[in-house]
Amino acid sequence: MKLVPLGDRVVIKQLEAEQVTKSGIVLPTGAKEKPQQAEVVAVGPGGMVDGKEVKMEVKAGDKVIYSKYAGTEVKLDDNEYIIVKQSDILAIVE
Amino acid sequence: MKLVPLGDRVVIKQLEAEQVTKSGIVLPTGAKEKPQQAEVVAVGPGGMVDGKEVKMEVKAGDKVIYSKYAGTEVKLDDNEYIIVKQSDILAIVE
Amino acid sequence: MKLVPLGDRVVIKQLEAEQVTKSGIVLPTGAKEKPQQAEVVAVGPGGMVDGKEVKMEVKAGDKVIYSKYAGTEVKLDDNEYIIVKQSDILAIVE
Amino acid sequence: MKLVPLGDRVVIKQLEAEQVTKSGIVLPTGAKEKPQQAEVVAVGPGGMVDGKEVKMEVKAGDKVIYSKYAGTEVKLDDNEYIIVKQSDILAIVE
Amino acid sequence: MKLVPLGDRVVIKQLEAEQVTKSGIVLPTGAKEKPQQAEVVAVGPGGMVDGKEVKMEVKAGDKVIYSKYAGTEVKLDDNEYIIVKQSDILAIVE
Amino acid sequence: MKLVPLGDRVVIKQLEAEQVTKSGIVLPTGAKEKPQQAEVVAVGPGGMVDGKEVKMEVKAGDKVIYSKYAGTEVKLDDNEYIIVKQSDILAIVE
Amino acid sequence: MKLVPLGDRVVIKQLEAEQVTKSGIVLPTGAKEKPQQAEVVAVGPGGMVDGKEVKMEVKAGDKVIYSKYAGTEVKLDDNEYIIVKQSDILAIVE
Repeated sequence: MKLVPLGDRVVIKQLEAEQVTKSGIVLPTGAKEKPQQAEVVAVGPGGMVDGKEVKMEVKAGDKVIYSKYAGTEVKLDDNEYIIVKQSDILAIVE
Repeated sequence: MKLVPLGDRVVIKQLEAEQVTKSGIVLPTGAKEKPQQAEVVAVGPGGMVDGKEVKMEVKAGDKVIYSKYAGTEVKLDDNEYIIVKQSDILAIVE
Repeated sequence: MKLVPLGDRVVIKQLEAEQVTKSGIVLPTGAKEKPQQAEVVAVGPGGMVDGKEVKMEVKAGDKVIYSKYAGTEVKLDDNEYIIVKQSDILAIVE
Repeated sequence: MKLVPLGDRVVIKQLEAEQVTKSGIVLPTGAKEKPQQAEVVAVGPGGMVDGKEVKMEVKAGDKVIYSKYAGTEVKLDDNEYIIVKQSDILAIVE
Repeated sequence: MKLVPLGDRVVIKQLEAEQVTKSGIVLPTGAKEKPQQAEVVAVGPGGMVDGKEVKMEVKAGDKVIYSKYAGTEVKLDDNEYIIVKQSDILAIVE
Repeated sequence: MKLVPLGDRVVIKQLEAEQVTKSGIVLPTGAKEKPQQAEVVAVGPGGMVDGKEVKMEVKAGDKVIYSKYAGTEVKLDDNEYIIVKQSDILAIVE
Repeated sequence: MKLVPLGDRVVIKQLEAEQVTKSGIVLPTGAKEKPQQAEVVAVGPGGMVDGKEVKMEVKAGDKVIYSKYAGTEVKLDDNEYIIVKQSDILAIVE
């Protein structure tokens, strides 16, 4: 089974937060309000969304920063995904 | 009797949540805020809705993920349906 | 006396909820937040409403499902009506 | 002195609620949230209002149903009027 | 010194509420939520305001009814003015 | 160092409130919700702002009345400025 | 790794607040609601954002004043960045 997002929606999969920094310091895991890194799994077709033309600018495989509280969590075949609107993606990490 | 949705509305019927995963683990049923899987029963004609052109992208029989709190529950002939706007449907499950 | 709705408004009259299901079970009447079935009594002319073109898609005599909290109750000659906007009508029951 | 409403505004004068129904039952007067019947006293010119073209559809003398909480009460020469936007008028009573 | 309002703003000066009615009854002054009568002192140029074309329809000297809570009080040379948007003016009193 | 405002923003500098009126009465300083007089220090270029064309109508040196709670205070080289949108400026004082 | 902002977003890096003024006075650090100075690190492409054409007016290296509560904090390789929309940038400091 796979998720095919509609409109300007994007399916992402959260990356494990690195809990040890380069310099070897262990970071606390409780920082609840931080944005998250995720990998793009599937991208909607874009087009007219709520009366506005949306062009999709991310693609599957991109690593992205997103607004944590904007998405909807979905569980499918024991995998957890998050479905966000493209406008909730803040930046691509290269 | 059948429901004929207006505008960009979609009639869906909730699928029973699978309570046993592939690996045989029984999942709790109380997770109230999770999005839901549903099957599309009927689809409105789309067109101009609130001043915006809406093209319907789901069809009867599609399995979809929707935002649980967005719909309106309707009971008809002992069947329970949910009427949502197409924009409350996040993704199609294939 | 009769009500002539303006713009995209629709005058409806609530149908008595069937309190006995096909299988003979008596349903409780207290379910306050459920959408309601109603019959359309009069339909506004549509046209430009709040800067948007609205085409009326229901007609007098239609049985409809509407969002219960959206309308305004009106009493006229001992009859009770509800005036809703067409966008508060979710589906036609055929 | 008279009130000349601007834009899409309408000056109305509340009709006394009939407190005795046809069948002779005295109705309570305390039902605060009910919509009200009123007579149209003066009608603004319509035209561009908040960036949208508004065509006036009521005229002086019309009996109308309006949303009670939408208007502004005005007292002029011992008369009490209510100034509403035309969109707060739900229906004409004929 | 004088106030030159920008955009669709209008400078008005509140008229003393008449505290004695025609029939000689003294009215209480505490009715806080009533709309107010005022005289127009200066009128902005109108034109494009917040992306919408606004045509000014009041002029200096007009007596108007306005929504009391919408304006901003300004004191200049011991005079008190109120600056409102034209859309907060409900009607002209002629 | 100087502040160069973007879009429809205007940098203003609050004028000391005159605490003695013409007639010699000392005014209290605690009136917190009053609009303020300020002098315009720098003006953004205007143009398309949030999808709307904005034409700047104030210029450096103008004395203006503004909505006190709308701006953002900025400290630069021991000077305190306020950055507001032009639409928060109510009138020019001439 | 680097951050490539989408749409009208801008990646900025907060400048250390100068805690000693020219005149040698030590400023308190607790002033939580003040806007902040930051340096622009990366700028999105602009273009159609939420149905509106946005032209980017800041560039990497600019020192800017921004609305403190508007951005999202991001940590990457031990550096802390803030991602804001260009409209949250109030002025450039030259």
